[in-house]
Amino acid sequence: MNESENIKEEILEMLADRRYADLKRRIDSMNPADIAGLLAEIPEEKVLPIFRLLAKELAAETFSEMDADMQEMLVRTFTDKELKEVLEEMYVDDTVDMIEEMPANLINRVLKQSDPATRKEINELLKYPEDSAGSIMTTEYMYLKEDMIVKDAFARIREVGEDKEDIYTCYVITETRKLIGLVTVRDLLLNSTHTRVGDLMEKNVIYVNTLDDKEYVAKMFDKYNFRTLPVVDTESRLVGIVTVDDAIDVLQDENTEDFEKMAAMTPSEDTYFKTSVFDHAKNRIIWLLVLMLSSTVTGMIITHYENAFASVPLLVAFIPMLMDTGGNCGSQASTLIIRGLALDEITTKDFLKAVWKESRVAVLVACVLAPVNALRIYVQYKNVGLSIVIAATLVCVVFIAKILGCALPMLAKKLKLDPALMASPLITTIVDACSVLIYFNIALRVMNLG
Amino acid sequence: MNESENIKEEILEMLADRRYADLKRRIDSMNPADIAGLLAEIPEEKVLPIFRLLAKELAAETFSEMDADMQEMLVRTFTDKELKEVLEEMYVDDTVDMIEEMPANLINRVLKQSDPATRKEINELLKYPEDSAGSIMTTEYMYLKEDMIVKDAFARIREVGEDKEDIYTCYVITETRKLIGLVTVRDLLLNSTHTRVGDLMEKNVIYVNTLDDKEYVAKMFDKYNFRTLPVVDTESRLVGIVTVDDAIDVLQDENTEDFEKMAAMTPSEDTYFKTSVFDHAKNRIIWLLVLMLSSTVTGMIITHYENAFASVPLLVAFIPMLMDTGGNCGSQASTLIIRGLALDEITTKDFLKAVWKESRVAVLVACVLAPVNALRIYVQYKNVGLSIVIAATLVCVVFIAKILGCALPMLAKKLKLDPALMASPLITTIVDACSVLIYFNIALRVMNLG
Repeated sequence: MNESENIKEEILEMLADRRYADLKRRIDSMNPADIAGLLAEIPEEKVLPIFRLLAKELAAETFSEMDADMQEMLVRTFTDKELKEVLEEMYVDDTVDMIEEMPANLINRVLKQSDPATRKEINELLKYPEDSAGSIMTTEYMYLKEDMIVKDAFARIREVGEDKEDIYTCYVITETRKLIGLVTVRDLLLNSTHTRVGDLMEKNVIYVNTLDDKEYVAKMFDKYNFRTLPVVDTESRLVGIVTVDDAIDVLQDENTEDFEKMAAMTPSEDTYFKTSVFDHAKNRIIWLLVLMLSSTVTGMIITHYENAFASVPLLVAFIPMLMDTGGNCGSQASTLIIRGLALDEITTKDFLKAVWKESRVAVLVACVLAPVNALRIYVQYKNVGLSIVIAATLVCVVFIAKILGCALPMLAKKLKLDPALMASPLITTIVDACSVLIYFNIALRVMNLG
Repeated sequence: MNESENIKEEILEMLADRRYADLKRRIDSMNPADIAGLLAEIPEEKVLPIFRLLAKELAAETFSEMDADMQEMLVRTFTDKELKEVLEEMYVDDTVDMIEEMPANLINRVLKQSDPATRKEINELLKYPEDSAGSIMTTEYMYLKEDMIVKDAFARIREVGEDKEDIYTCYVITETRKLIGLVTVRDLLLNSTHTRVGDLMEKNVIYVNTLDDKEYVAKMFDKYNFRTLPVVDTESRLVGIVTVDDAIDVLQDENTEDFEKMAAMTPSEDTYFKTSVFDHAKNRIIWLLVLMLSSTVTGMIITHYENAFASVPLLVAFIPMLMDTGGNCGSQASTLIIRGLALDEITTKDFLKAVWKESRVAVLVACVLAPVNALRIYVQYKNVGLSIVIAATLVCVVFIAKILGCALPMLAKKLKLDPALMASPLITTIVDACSVLIYFNIALRVMNLG
């Protein structure tokens, strides 16, 4: 943390002193991601002067690492020549990512400064639906033909490799661009220069379709340990590749989305500070309203048992503890199930197996919580009846909470809904109503009230 | 889903009919991860016969993809020769991952069948602390010397590349194994065969230390889009590399851990079904007990205001709604902050900025929730005083919940505790007590009770 502060001070000082050669040497030795991070920290008017000192390729790499706001600011201030140079060095998928965040007039400017072939590719990529494999792929992949020999393959890699996002996995395609195999540069290096690519290639290629969900694509990387994955169209023609770094971004985004949904929020597109106060409020209010109004049911159940707590007011004191414990038990179960479903470790076929597991866990948990609480209440109030009521209620509440927490996400999945919606907040609200109902019914019977 | 069922049936049929050649042809065309998945689904006694049909290299790759239980089962049943063959083909980091889950007698068997050099490496790797970079790295990396020319480099890659986990990034080291640079195979391919490696190499190498936390290592991959990352010891000597597939596993595990902690559970090492009922209960009980006993505070506050709800019993009916809304508001804020801290999008320096943001969000949220509820209560009970009490309480509760939800995880981070511990369950419990206290105080004043 302090180190990056120091570099920032050092660089701003060099800029103020117009020591441009020193400045250039200093930043040219840095990693693009770090330069982008640095530029995000300094005053806007100083970004372009520093950016202009970067070597051409490094400038484009740094530009790709910037967030959308800074890219937009730079595109606005770039000369046509500067914009053209950056675009030439950028990978098409990064250009598309940038364009997707931009206002229309800037998109036109970017398209105008791209060369015609790239412009066509950009336009193709922009057509894919937002969460599809097509939207995260790049068209800059290495392809070979099956009757090439290793020597030809290397010649081709040397010729066009510079512009490809990944050269280490080369896909083998037919004249009609059908994907028929892959060879790695490792295979090429470890075989004699006259071997036919067709004889070397791995024929069982795992691929995805352009319209597959990007989360599915990301999971393929997690499962198969690939560095790149080919994307084919409906006629099995190779149209692009997804690289592992984009897959990691998708995985992290999907995890963030799940965290947000599980806390009863509409997922946000942006980081915490980039999201406006108004959008934050908007993302949170709907679920809060729904849950707030649902919890009136619990209130109405309580009102129904007014006589019970009119005669034993102490009963009210245990409502929060019962509600909280129920909610916590439910959210423990639902979190494990939702996460298991997300990682494909649990499927809807495991429904009964999971319910059976949660039942047994519930028994163990209840066997600890109920006696502890019963004892505490007895010590504090010397009231055996009350101890029994609370202990018995706890057992039921723990059991119901664990079963609902386990069953509801799986039912959601079965109904093709997002299991993450069945997380703690909703389950807490449902369990609350059950808890209160059970509580007063047990109290009425054990304590002979009402 | 159905497809994998079909393959399973097909393969079991071939095995039953002793059509071994067909069977071999069928599975040899499959991906190791898929074969491992398939073998996990079939009866244990049929695993070894099928496994024995696999080509040597594919067998080792499949073995690496299996879960610990199946690996253990196979190691028990392998002949010495089979075990030796599999171990020869496996990468050292995968062997270490396997050993870490095994009982001592099997570890000895594995070490005995490994060749002496590998055995030494395994023993070295086993020494690193559990969550360190050293524990997830492999020692099978490609290294070059700075005075080699490109031609020598390729000769070396051809000679030893077969056994390396990654050959595309070659690290340049000195005689004393100090890391001084890196070249990629792409650089080697795109430059003339007589270029010196020392002239080609990137000198600003980003690396990690053997004792760095593996979560930090995984984040480096996310940030820099690397495929491999070098690991050095305290004397800057290169000792291993971490590959991106292992980094993805770490990221996913860390996310799962955060989900579990945020639902008040001790993270589990294993998947949902692999964790025993007893361990599940153990992971959940401690926090449940702590939170259950803490929520008695809320109960005691309620008892303190017994007179208030004795005169207006309806007051009790709104406790669940206030508690739930407070809990949900708090967990929304805490989830966003915890996730932001985990992704380094928020740092503890942003404390005031975050609190200020949450305050404004709280105002907007309260401006919607309070009137809606006030109106609903007025319509239902025609009681202006009650409407005012609930609306005023809601405003305070939303505000406090948002501030606590935002502040507590950041304070935890500042105190070097895990922010994920300050998630919904704990914040709910704290907010509950505040809500009830505020509620009765407002009620006493507005409704002239007590």
